[in-house]
This record gives sequence, C-alpha cells and structure tokens, in this order.
Amino acid sequence: MSGKTVKPELIGGTRDLLPREALALQRITATIKSVYESFGFVPLETPCLERRSVLTGDDENFNKSIFSARVVRGAEDKNIDAAQLAGDDSALRFDLTVPLARVVAAYPELPRPFKRYQIGKVFRGEQPQAGRFREFFQFDFDIIGSSSILADVETIQVMYEAMKALSIPRFLIRFNSRRILTGLTEMTGRLDRAKDILRIIDKIDKLGPDGVLEELHRQPVNRYDESAIAMSQEGVDMVKRFLQIRGDNPDAILQELRDFFAETKGNGLKGIIEVEEIISRLRALGIPPEHWQFDLSVARGLDYYTGPVFETYLTDMPELGSVFSGGRFDGLTDRFIPGSNIAGVGASVGIDRLIVGLDKLGLLETSQSPSRVLVTIFNEQLQSESALFAADLRRQGCNVELYLGDDPTLRAQFAYAAKMDIPFAVVIGPEEAEQGNVQLKDMVTRKQEALTREECSARIRAS
Amino acid sequence: MSGKTVKPELIGGTRDLLPREALALQRITATIKSVYESFGFVPLETPCLERRSVLTGDDENFNKSIFSARVVRGAEDKNIDAAQLAGDDSALRFDLTVPLARVVAAYPELPRPFKRYQIGKVFRGEQPQAGRFREFFQFDFDIIGSSSILADVETIQVMYEAMKALSIPRFLIRFNSRRILTGLTEMTGRLDRAKDILRIIDKIDKLGPDGVLEELHRQPVNRYDESAIAMSQEGVDMVKRFLQIRGDNPDAILQELRDFFAETKGNGLKGIIEVEEIISRLRALGIPPEHWQFDLSVARGLDYYTGPVFETYLTDMPELGSVFSGGRFDGLTDRFIPGSNIAGVGASVGIDRLIVGLDKLGLLETSQSPSRVLVTIFNEQLQSESALFAADLRRQGCNVELYLGDDPTLRAQFAYAAKMDIPFAVVIGPEEAEQGNVQLKDMVTRKQEALTREECSARIRAS
Repeated sequence: MSGKTVKPELIGGTRDLLPREALALQRITATIKSVYESFGFVPLETPCLERRSVLTGDDENFNKSIFSARVVRGAEDKNIDAAQLAGDDSALRFDLTVPLARVVAAYPELPRPFKRYQIGKVFRGEQPQAGRFREFFQFDFDIIGSSSILADVETIQVMYEAMKALSIPRFLIRFNSRRILTGLTEMTGRLDRAKDILRIIDKIDKLGPDGVLEELHRQPVNRYDESAIAMSQEGVDMVKRFLQIRGDNPDAILQELRDFFAETKGNGLKGIIEVEEIISRLRALGIPPEHWQFDLSVARGLDYYTGPVFETYLTDMPELGSVFSGGRFDGLTDRFIPGSNIAGVGASVGIDRLIVGLDKLGLLETSQSPSRVLVTIFNEQLQSESALFAADLRRQGCNVELYLGDDPTLRAQFAYAAKMDIPFAVVIGPEEAEQGNVQLKDMVTRKQEALTREECSARIRAS
Repeated sequence: MSGKTVKPELIGGTRDLLPREALALQRITATIKSVYESFGFVPLETPCLERRSVLTGDDENFNKSIFSARVVRGAEDKNIDAAQLAGDDSALRFDLTVPLARVVAAYPELPRPFKRYQIGKVFRGEQPQAGRFREFFQFDFDIIGSSSILADVETIQVMYEAMKALSIPRFLIRFNSRRILTGLTEMTGRLDRAKDILRIIDKIDKLGPDGVLEELHRQPVNRYDESAIAMSQEGVDMVKRFLQIRGDNPDAILQELRDFFAETKGNGLKGIIEVEEIISRLRALGIPPEHWQFDLSVARGLDYYTGPVFETYLTDMPELGSVFSGGRFDGLTDRFIPGSNIAGVGASVGIDRLIVGLDKLGLLETSQSPSRVLVTIFNEQLQSESALFAADLRRQGCNVELYLGDDPTLRAQFAYAAKMDIPFAVVIGPEEAEQGNVQLKDMVTRKQEALTREECSARIRAS
C-alpha cells in the first residue's frame, strides 16, 4: 500500500451500521422475514446493477436522479471518453419494484400468483440531507398476478402482523383507493391531467385547501406554461366539495362518497366498493380497528399505483412519515411486454426509518455482541486449556468468545467482556486446570465462583 | 409508463437468484452466520458506495478495474461534462476488507480485538466471462487487533466449523505462511522484488518449474524493461532447491524447511515457527487431520497478506478453486493512519461459488417455498371461511399460503401447490364450513380426508 494517506470518510448520504445497529437491523429483518414467510412469500435476489434502460423504461420524461455506473481501471482514470461512456448502460437500482417487473417479464415460468419478498440496498442520486440517504435498505413483499381483493387485504394483514411481531404497541395503517381520486379527476372532466391534479391535491398540507383550489384554477401565464391546469370553476367546486368530505367513522365517509359520486359509474364508484370490501374483510379477520383507518388523504406518490394504497405510521411519531407503504400497481410489466397488464399489489418497509423510530421510542432491543461468555486466557501455557473449553461450550450450542486480544492481563480481558456486554467470563488458572474446574464470573453481579465444567456450562445455558 | 418497449435483460456478469436459489442462499448464509456468531463475531454493515480514494488508496499503481458511480438525472444524460465527472468521487466496493479498514480507522472507540463479520455485494469491473461475476456476495469474518497465533488458529477453526455445519463431508483447508515465501526472496537477496518474484512462482502450474526459474533469471530486453527480475544464478538455484521441497507429512516438510533456512534468522524461520504452532494447536483442538494440510504452494494473491494464508477446497471439486480463503494482513489501516500497523486475520467465503459446488455435488437442499400448506378458496362466498382458517394456522406458527390466484378452479389451485412444492392443501367447501371441519389433501400421496380443524392443524405441524 504505497499510496498517499487517505481520509477514512464516507460519501455523503451513506452510513455505516456499527455492530449494535447491525444486530438490531438483523433482528428486525429476521422478524419481518418470518412474517412474510408465514404468508407463503418466497425470496428473490437481483443485482444492484441493472441496465439503465430497464430502470428508466427508456422514458424521456423519467426525472429521478440515479447513479449510473461505469468501469474504470486503476485509481486515476479521469480522461473521460464520452463516446465510450455513452455505451455504458449500467446504473444502480432505485427501488426493488422495477427489478421485480423485469424478473416477472423475463421468466414466464414463474408461478402465478408469484408472491416474493426481497431485501436489498437501493440507491438514490438525491442531494444528501438530514434523514435522506443515497443508499438504504428496502424490504418489499409483493403479490404478482392476483387481481383479487383478497390480495389487497392480505397486504394489509402482512403489514399488521409484521408491526405486531416487532412488538410495536401503537401504530396505524391508513388506506385509501387511488380509484376514488381518479374518479374525482374524471368528474372534473380533466382525466387528461390526473397525475398533475393529484400532485397538487397532495400538497394540501403545504398550500391549504384554498391554495389547492387556486392552483387548480390557475390559467397559463403564457402559451408555453404547461404546468397550469386551468380547471373550470365547476371542476374546482367539485374538488372543493370533495375536500370537505369528513366523517367520524369509515361508514359515514363512505356514505358521503356514495352521494358525491352518485351520478357516475366510473372509477369513483369502483374505489368505494374496493374500500368497502377491504373494511368488511378486515373486520371479519378480527384485525383490531385501532390499527387501521380509511383515510381519503392517503395518495401514496403519483406514479404507478392503480388501486388501494397503504401507509403505516408509528402513532407516537407521526413526523417520521410512513414506515411501511404500498398499494396496487396493475400494469407493472407493461414497459417490457406492452399490454400484458399483469396485476400486482404489495408494500415495502423502510427499515432505516423504522430503526430510527424504534430507537427513539425505546423499542429497539440492542446489544453489542451475541456472545454469552468470554473464556479468558490466564497465561500462554494455559491457552490450549481455555481454547479446548471454549470449543466444548460451543459444541453445546453456546456462543463463546475466546479472548484473542494483545493485552494479556485479566483486568483487560474483563474490561473487554464488559464493553461487549458479554454476561459471563470464565477463568482457567493453574489450579483450575489441575482440578478440571473453572472460575465463572458473572459480569453483572461481579460475583465469581469455582464450578465444575459441567456446572459452568449448565449455568451459562440456563441464564 | 409512457416509454418505449424495453428488453427485460440483465447487464453482463450479473444474475438473478430465483426463489429456489435464493432460499438455498439464505440457508447457507444463516448456517455460516450462526457459526461466526458462535465464536463471538459481530455484524457490520457498510455502504456499497465508497469514495474512490478510499478504495484505491489514492495509489497510482492501483490496477484493479472498478465501477465508478456518478449521479445523472433522468433517462437521457449522455452529454458528459468531464470536469463535473472528475469531481465525482464515488465507486462501488470491490471487497469488504478495504471498507473494514476504513471503519477501523474511523471509529477508534471500537473494541479491540474487533471481531466482525459482514455479508454484502461486491463489484468487479472485469470483463464478464463464464463463472466470473461483476457483482457477487462475499461473507467475511475478521479479527482486528490481535497478533496472537490464537487468532490464526481460530480462523482455521471457524472455516472448519462452517464447512461441517454445511454438512460438507469432504473438504480440505490448505495453509502456508507468506513469511516462508518472503524468507525465500530474502535469501535470494531480492527482497526488493518480493511481490514480482512471488507472482512468477505462483504461475508454476502454467510455466512449470523450469519456466519459473527461467523467468526469474531473465535479463531486461532493454533499459525500459522493468518486468525482468534478472535474479543471480545463485538465487535461481536457491529457488530451485526450495521448489523441490516435498514430504509425506507436515513434520517432514518442516524439517526440510529448517534445513533450507538453516543459515538465516529472517522471515523464513518465523514462518516455520508460525506453521509449527498452528499445526500443534490444530492437533490439540482435535481438528481431524484429513481436513487440513500444510501446503507450500498456497500463496493466496499477492497484495496484502503478511503471515499465514488459507484456502479451502471441496475435495470432490478441486477445479472449482478455493471456496473459503483468507490470511493474516497486518498493517491494514496504514493507508489511513500511516504506521498504525494494526494486526488483522480472517477469511471470506465465496457464497456464489459454494452454491455452484454444493449444487453439483447434490448437497444443496432446495425447495420452492417455505409454505407447509395451501388453503384453497372453494368459492367467493366461502373466501372468509378459508381466510380465517389460514390466519388461525398461522397463529399456531405454521407457514400458510391462502390461494390468491385469478384461476378459481380447485384443479388450478392444486396445480399451484404442486408447482410450489407445498406438501398439503386444505379445502373448505359448503359442507365443511357447515360442519366446522376441513378436507386435507396430502400433495405427495394424493390422499384426501375429512378432519376436524384441530386434527388438521396437528397433522400439518407434526409432518
């Protein structure tokens, strides 16, 4: 390593998970995985590197910032050959949904429905800022090839069971149907601008209801102003009425919606029926009503959702945003197989955000090490004695660390056990070696006692 | 998704793991992880994206091909601004060792020894070819901050226990010490060209012993030929003698080596002592001698190893190469903290290669799904009945899939269970719903019988 001195720094927007956090991550993902598997979801692995055209759909309107990747040889390769670069079609995935769509399109032999889960890193080319990462985990589950409402209900059920399995006492799954919002744009006669209209309505927290209505009505400032919707006054009044729909309970809201969409047979009505079906099935399954809520304000991004949409909030930390989100996205594979119109529904847990939330709420069980016991080294002559006992404990299914540090004092060895939160330490000195027993030190009570090796192993395993 | 049609293709040198393979990957990594944890190793997570200077050490002689990454906005961004690009310092890690070094340098509060494991994707900018991936998993464990021979021995022990835990009956861990090879270059008087000399010796399988000696002796063809070693005839004769060292057993080889290095007190002797220590401790620990071998031909790459080096071969598939390799690499953090000279030793399992090997040897336990039972849907009216029974089985700890497919016939539902290797299917028709029981179909024997719901659940859980 003949190079210059380098600062051991990360790039902005990325982070390390040191052992305490990495252990917490493992526990959380193992818990969620067991819930996914209990519903019959199967794992899938796809590369981080994908063709750029696969990720963007070769869509000229694609406007996300992504990481493109290109091969360079050696440390210094700053003489860029643009032509060579243009032929370099690799980029880093920004979610796990587009790769899923590629897999479904590429392997027609996969079963239908295809219920898969996947955990993996995703990458966003955003400007780094507090709480926004450029590289983070997603942990998705999706049901491909089922248009049944059972699949939408199961999606909520999986989210509910995962939150319960994580021992989170207070959480709320809010849902809506994108069809209701699409129905609204239909009624205003402006289905042609549905995405833009929903994007404006979604800003209601920032603009207020009047601001939203004003923006919808706004006329173009000149002939090149494509952002203006210029919605008719009649349309604006409809949106106004829609935004005033409230109710104490889902049934009341649904009744108001039925009145609102009374004259139409379009998406609005379909959305209402979808929501009614979901509610009646959640009730039949006995999912406690304090954990779910029909909420008209849930819009869930703007791109690919087509039916029910879901968000999950930690009740005590709403400011964190949704930690588990998803919805129905029929037509997923259309960019690969035009007109294939394959049904899909699922959700994704934001692991990094969830860890932050659980940590702040004191719900994150953490430790420094999975080890139950540190077997110390008394001196060089007795190394083998300790190594053999450690191997023996390990064969009995115990996580055992043999002290390998360069500071040979017992004091340093105990300090290491304390730092690592290892609950027991074993000492085998000349006397213990001769008598075939050990000293067992409880690192919490600081008590130490002589035990036979069988007693010692029983004590550790029983603790 | 208004773009053009895109082919659902991968970039060369990457691959998908469909559920059968992904489940196998999970089983293998879970097994290895439990072995790592049984020795007290703790997990670490670091980003795939690192500063390019961190990865290359700002070393002008760095000659690996890596993926550099840069942010682009949108689908079309082919107008490269070279200046902007030059400032873009991100690249994809090519191993997990350099990121570990960065972590050790950046967080002085970490315990010493720091025993960490990490699984993650690594990326190589190589030309894709059969069996060579540009993106693959590594699963490393390393002990940082221990110069004790106990740590080298533990590394072999971990590799041995992992191979045993994977139920691989025939494997061989071969080891050597880089110090012996360094001692050889010392004796030839050409320590200045140690790396180049070892690189040539490592080609012995291709060049043959005579070819190696010739290449060492070769004079420069002109004054710019820096590749020639131009070793003295005396040096070449020494290498020749060294290459002739063989023995039926480790003790015989060590005796020959002691004779060879008799006149020196340098690295050669230190290497011999290292190997002797390792052998005596492996014997003391009772690691069966058919699973390890001292082998002078193990050189293990050329860059950062400084002491013992390890390779693990599947005895029945030596052509696969080493599936589990490592060694001692003192001085790991020197590129970040000059002169820090922190000790390190560990190894890395090549998961992808191991899966290929286990599959070919018929040792890969595979299945399509973790589900134990498919609960079918008899008709729309009875959906809730089936959904409730599925939830009930799940609460009893069983992995249960409720059929969500769009083909409602029982025939299609049974075909789905068969395709997914799900061993049982449950049918709840009008009669069963009324009597509160179920039909349980064993998908292997094709037998079907009426059972109470308790009997059904007991039968599935007992299977």
